[in-house]
Amino acid sequence: MHTMNPDRLSKQMEFVVEIDKLKQVLRRTITINENRNENSSEHSWHVSVMAILLAEHAADRGIDLLRTIKMMLVHDLVEIDAGDTYCYDEAAGRDRPERESRAADRIFAILPAEQAAELRALWEEFEARATPESRFANALDRLQALLLNYHTHGKTWRKHKVKRDQVIARAEPIEEGSSALWQYAKALIDRAASEGLLEAKGA
Amino acid sequence: MHTMNPDRLSKQMEFVVEIDKLKQVLRRTITINENRNENSSEHSWHVSVMAILLAEHAADRGIDLLRTIKMMLVHDLVEIDAGDTYCYDEAAGRDRPERESRAADRIFAILPAEQAAELRALWEEFEARATPESRFANALDRLQALLLNYHTHGKTWRKHKVKRDQVIARAEPIEEGSSALWQYAKALIDRAASEGLLEAKGA
Repeated sequence: MHTMNPDRLSKQMEFVVEIDKLKQVLRRTITINENRNENSSEHSWHVSVMAILLAEHAADRGIDLLRTIKMMLVHDLVEIDAGDTYCYDEAAGRDRPERESRAADRIFAILPAEQAAELRALWEEFEARATPESRFANALDRLQALLLNYHTHGKTWRKHKVKRDQVIARAEPIEEGSSALWQYAKALIDRAASEGLLEAKGA
Repeated sequence: MHTMNPDRLSKQMEFVVEIDKLKQVLRRTITINENRNENSSEHSWHVSVMAILLAEHAADRGIDLLRTIKMMLVHDLVEIDAGDTYCYDEAAGRDRPERESRAADRIFAILPAEQAAELRALWEEFEARATPESRFANALDRLQALLLNYHTHGKTWRKHKVKRDQVIARAEPIEEGSSALWQYAKALIDRAASEGLLEAKGA
């Protein structure tokens, strides 16, 4: 389809170099095996592998796995400019859409036009949660954070005094993407609460 | 295909938790934007995004992109046990196949049998470089390291006194996967040599 166009390849390579910055974007979650914050590139890799392994549990068995994995790989790229917004930070959450949209304008535009459009559409699809693929992708995104929080003894939850109800509310979209993963998530939250990793409601 | 089998899901989740360890495996390459070693999960994410963007340059235009990306996502998992082997360390390279094969035996076996077989086959395919997908995957793997080395002013090359010929030999398999990427890589190596980031032959 594309003849070798040095300008096209140089745009692609500029983008490849640019996205190295995602390795600097720190999340609130702690990696299971080292006491340090996870970065968004590590997270993106982790949820992409989860998509391969757990696709059979998607609410819609007919999801397009390639599109789902692409979505997982690029869903956090806007954080290069917008940073990671902690899901329990309501103030930061308010202007998140605007910050991320500006970031998308700049970052994807580095690519040749039709690739920029494809990646931006994948990101917007992820955010809108209106397709089976994006609902499953969001389920994986939230389940992964839950897993890391649980397996690090709720360090981030305890630091921010997060309550069980907040974690349930945050995890609830998992249900739309996969009932099996939602059952698993609920059981994990219950275990976390019973082990004292989460504050009780109103505590 | 699979009815909800709690044992099956718990094996998958055990694997998801296990592979978090790849975030601890350090490579010799330095990230472009922070002066620290890249880890293998970050690298796996980076080459997976490259597969999406650069697939049009593959020697075989008919490659299966989903299988290629899956290969990129899992190609370094054996390093959880075997560690990253520096490509210019001949001594460590000698027992690498045996160390990695033992690692594969343990790590993939955590999964339900048919998923273990699928992931192991992807890893073996990557290593054998006998299919169009694996040749392209290896091209991306080597090009990514080259990019990071170049854009960090050859810090790792200079530290290990790597010579231009060694880098050419290491990069050469890119040609089998993509002639466009091989042209790009050769030009980058020439630039690195002219900028003094690589030692000349025999120096």
